[in-house]
Amino acid sequence: MRLTVYLAGEIHSSWRDEIKEKAAALKLPIDFVGPQENHDRSDNIGEEIIGEQPGPFYKDWAASSFNNLRTEVLMQKADLVIALFGEKYKQWNTAMDASAAVALGKPLILIRPEQHIHALKELSRKANATVENCDQAIKALKYIFD
Amino acid sequence: MRLTVYLAGEIHSSWRDEIKEKAAALKLPIDFVGPQENHDRSDNIGEEIIGEQPGPFYKDWAASSFNNLRTEVLMQKADLVIALFGEKYKQWNTAMDASAAVALGKPLILIRPEQHIHALKELSRKANATVENCDQAIKALKYIFD
Amino acid sequence: MRLTVYLAGEIHSSWRDEIKEKAAALKLPIDFVGPQENHDRSDNIGEEIIGEQPGPFYKDWAASSFNNLRTEVLMQKADLVIALFGEKYKQWNTAMDASAAVALGKPLILIRPEQHIHALKELSRKANATVENCDQAIKALKYIFD
Amino acid sequence: MRLTVYLAGEIHSSWRDEIKEKAAALKLPIDFVGPQENHDRSDNIGEEIIGEQPGPFYKDWAASSFNNLRTEVLMQKADLVIALFGEKYKQWNTAMDASAAVALGKPLILIRPEQHIHALKELSRKANATVENCDQAIKALKYIFD
Amino acid sequence: MRLTVYLAGEIHSSWRDEIKEKAAALKLPIDFVGPQENHDRSDNIGEEIIGEQPGPFYKDWAASSFNNLRTEVLMQKADLVIALFGEKYKQWNTAMDASAAVALGKPLILIRPEQHIHALKELSRKANATVENCDQAIKALKYIFD
Amino acid sequence: MRLTVYLAGEIHSSWRDEIKEKAAALKLPIDFVGPQENHDRSDNIGEEIIGEQPGPFYKDWAASSFNNLRTEVLMQKADLVIALFGEKYKQWNTAMDASAAVALGKPLILIRPEQHIHALKELSRKANATVENCDQAIKALKYIFD
Amino acid sequence: MRLTVYLAGEIHSSWRDEIKEKAAALKLPIDFVGPQENHDRSDNIGEEIIGEQPGPFYKDWAASSFNNLRTEVLMQKADLVIALFGEKYKQWNTAMDASAAVALGKPLILIRPEQHIHALKELSRKANATVENCDQAIKALKYIFD
Amino acid sequence: MRLTVYLAGEIHSSWRDEIKEKAAALKLPIDFVGPQENHDRSDNIGEEIIGEQPGPFYKDWAASSFNNLRTEVLMQKADLVIALFGEKYKQWNTAMDASAAVALGKPLILIRPEQHIHALKELSRKANATVENCDQAIKALKYIFD
Repeated sequence: MRLTVYLAGEIHSSWRDEIKEKAAALKLPIDFVGPQENHDRSDNIGEEIIGEQPGPFYKDWAASSFNNLRTEVLMQKADLVIALFGEKYKQWNTAMDASAAVALGKPLILIRPEQHIHALKELSRKANATVENCDQAIKALKYIFD
Repeated sequence: MRLTVYLAGEIHSSWRDEIKEKAAALKLPIDFVGPQENHDRSDNIGEEIIGEQPGPFYKDWAASSFNNLRTEVLMQKADLVIALFGEKYKQWNTAMDASAAVALGKPLILIRPEQHIHALKELSRKANATVENCDQAIKALKYIFD
Repeated sequence: MRLTVYLAGEIHSSWRDEIKEKAAALKLPIDFVGPQENHDRSDNIGEEIIGEQPGPFYKDWAASSFNNLRTEVLMQKADLVIALFGEKYKQWNTAMDASAAVALGKPLILIRPEQHIHALKELSRKANATVENCDQAIKALKYIFD
Repeated sequence: MRLTVYLAGEIHSSWRDEIKEKAAALKLPIDFVGPQENHDRSDNIGEEIIGEQPGPFYKDWAASSFNNLRTEVLMQKADLVIALFGEKYKQWNTAMDASAAVALGKPLILIRPEQHIHALKELSRKANATVENCDQAIKALKYIFD
Repeated sequence: MRLTVYLAGEIHSSWRDEIKEKAAALKLPIDFVGPQENHDRSDNIGEEIIGEQPGPFYKDWAASSFNNLRTEVLMQKADLVIALFGEKYKQWNTAMDASAAVALGKPLILIRPEQHIHALKELSRKANATVENCDQAIKALKYIFD
Repeated sequence: MRLTVYLAGEIHSSWRDEIKEKAAALKLPIDFVGPQENHDRSDNIGEEIIGEQPGPFYKDWAASSFNNLRTEVLMQKADLVIALFGEKYKQWNTAMDASAAVALGKPLILIRPEQHIHALKELSRKANATVENCDQAIKALKYIFD
Repeated sequence: MRLTVYLAGEIHSSWRDEIKEKAAALKLPIDFVGPQENHDRSDNIGEEIIGEQPGPFYKDWAASSFNNLRTEVLMQKADLVIALFGEKYKQWNTAMDASAAVALGKPLILIRPEQHIHALKELSRKANATVENCDQAIKALKYIFD
Repeated sequence: MRLTVYLAGEIHSSWRDEIKEKAAALKLPIDFVGPQENHDRSDNIGEEIIGEQPGPFYKDWAASSFNNLRTEVLMQKADLVIALFGEKYKQWNTAMDASAAVALGKPLILIRPEQHIHALKELSRKANATVENCDQAIKALKYIFD
């Protein structure tokens, strides 16, 4: 039995690589998918595909079309979603993806730093499990196969 | 035909009163529901109901149980959700509620200030309509009945 | 038992008035809802609510946000959808609404002129019933209560 | 991860071949499905299977049964739907399939020429992304795998 | 709390009157709905609405359109379905409606005579409860309110 | 806004009366529904309706048909489910109803005594909120309306 | 792309072999599943598994448990359902399975003899396509892959 | 055709091994999944992953997070659920998992000892089939493939 896991969350650090490497080291039969991790490309993908827009609002609208398309296709393929909040940034997409996962019946592991316990308490209560780092998330993934 | 509208978003300003008053002035047949707006009570509701907890993490966990219960009951009653982002705060609950509304098939109006256009572009793209203030949201509500 | 019926289709003729008057004459317990029938207002509603846009494409995009919001709220309230195709115009919104009704499990009556039998054969086959004029649609509505 | 993509839309041009060839050139792991592209066969399939009918209306009704059966089986297999509108024809089946895709939760890319921006604005607003030609659609497909 | 109950089954006897009278005598807060009980009208409704057809096959096809429309609208309103099999006739519509009720999550009471126990065993096993006459069905309805 | 609340759980104590009286004292706009509380009648309802059975296994099978019918009709009407575990008895129906509520998307409040914390930990984790007595459950209901 | 097709209907003739052989001759990539075709075994499976029952009613009840279990597992695997009515027998299971398929969103091909056109008109109207023999059903299957 | 079967129920005996061995001996194409069977590990998994908790209540809450995550992922993969009740213990998780299976549309086989017939009558009535031991459950699995 293989699982597909969608990795939602910030694209400013290499946490996805850490998850993938540790899962590979444990030989967990998991295929990981996720958003476009090149930040500039994610911001520019609208103009890259449909051409120049009349200003930043419209550039953002175009980019979000293709980013949402990607997320929707891949999240529907996922058996499980992991959503990571870092210490900085607004991270509204992370909250959006985590909440969509719960509403769609996709099991959710939330990773969030201690400092965000209070601000994320309602989202954390909706998740199946909340942990503080990637190591703990890997242990949770491994437990599914043990 | 009456509609029930859930007002998701920050509880630090009186934007819900503005919406309700303007809807009343226009005699729109709408019942408004929403989260607990007393911030302290929202934070303390867990201990208020099930008693003192062994620390802030557990106090938050208890409070979020009852806040989520309330939101889930009331959002299921809603025909439409309006989610407002203010200029400050993390507002992860707003993103969570807005995303849940979309995933549950509830039509969504997003209200967000101009400065958050970029950070909210993917959530905005999922909403049925995005506006910048309560007056515009009221016009959108009124248009449904015109 | 009252029913709510959504009247999808062109807004260039007064067919909705005909349906409503005939249903009233028969005292059918039906509440009718439908799209904005003032064509200019439907085209301008985006700029009316969120202000001037940088060109016709963006004006259309803004208008469609509020038109879709309205349709989604009202169609979810409907027990039955009637979709009318006239003899002229592209009427892609009519096809869109009729198909959405079927996919959402809303019973559908299609009204289409004889000349469009061939072009609408697949949509007609998905409808619960297809008729050629409003009188026949009224008879179908009446039959539900007989 | 392989995806299945349903190609809805007109069967008078070779746009599906263009999509398939370009996807093959990029080695995208995609299986394409779609409607019967032989127009005469699509019109005659009813009589081909269940025999001669008493007139064109009944011939159309018979053909649409098997065309809809095919579409329903294949669209349920699809992870993503691309719907193309050409410059001519009524294309009500395209609007029907695109709208059904959205209602069924299938991500949708709309391809439509500039001249149809206004007439397709509401359907375009429901799509995940709208583009103007096959090259742009291929870029959107590729972005999912990048 | 009022319930709506759909009465599926044969239209050759007056069993629906018996159910309605006994429920009224017990003052059960129930609204009953069901198919067209005038057999001739049920068979002719297609031609009554859309005009003469080229033969009995097409007359049946037309009639079934409006009969299915009626059933679909009314069954979606129902909280509970009662399906009665008599001793005679094929009664395939009864089996069809009873099975649809189960698949749609509508609680089902089956009424069938002793002689059909074997032939209806699989359908009976899917029903919430199976009884042999209207008196027993009324007791089951009453038990919901006791 | 009125709510309907299903009260699942043991029928050996008068906890439902306590809930109803306290809700009435607070004038909460709630309609309460629940299982048959007369234990003997609940056990005998099968034979009461369809007559004597060939042994206790078949008597139980008959009774459970009508008890499940009642529960299914009433739980589908509920906006919220409260499930109470007492200190004694197996209470498998309580676990069954609570789990069905969660799976059906009905918000769930679990009431369980301290001694069952460990044995009910997985079910408690699925509930929206877990409390230890009826007073706390009433506070949770009241909070929804505050 | 392979399809799984559930073959519902009578088990007194060899129509399933005919379908399978013709599909194999055409090399259609289809896996066929269906009910237990040994009539005696189907009737006795309850007592075969859980032992002797106190009479024919209880024997039927036991058998139907395992027959329904089998059907439910296999039909959930199916992409398409073919339901055949023969000229004789009540065939209520066929009507039940065909109706369940439609309600579950499984595309349905109905095979029924000319003499049953009238009695099956409502079920036929719900099917995607209705044919009169296995050859026509095979042509419909083949058309999906052409 | 392979099936995935989730084995819910007590983890104090080796009944899962018995099921797996007998299925293997019959060469049934089945993949079995289920909960963590090491009781201590199941109780400690919360502290194992997220660290020491401030007391047994919180230890249980943490453990149940990961146990529920595991169950939710694996049960969503299952085509069929078998739930076994032993003679001892509260077994509320078994009732919870069995009920969730039914509510999610997963076919369910219940295994329960004779002494629990009465207490489990309502859950048994919801199951597709109820048997008394693993041998009978294996026969039911085998019947699906015969």
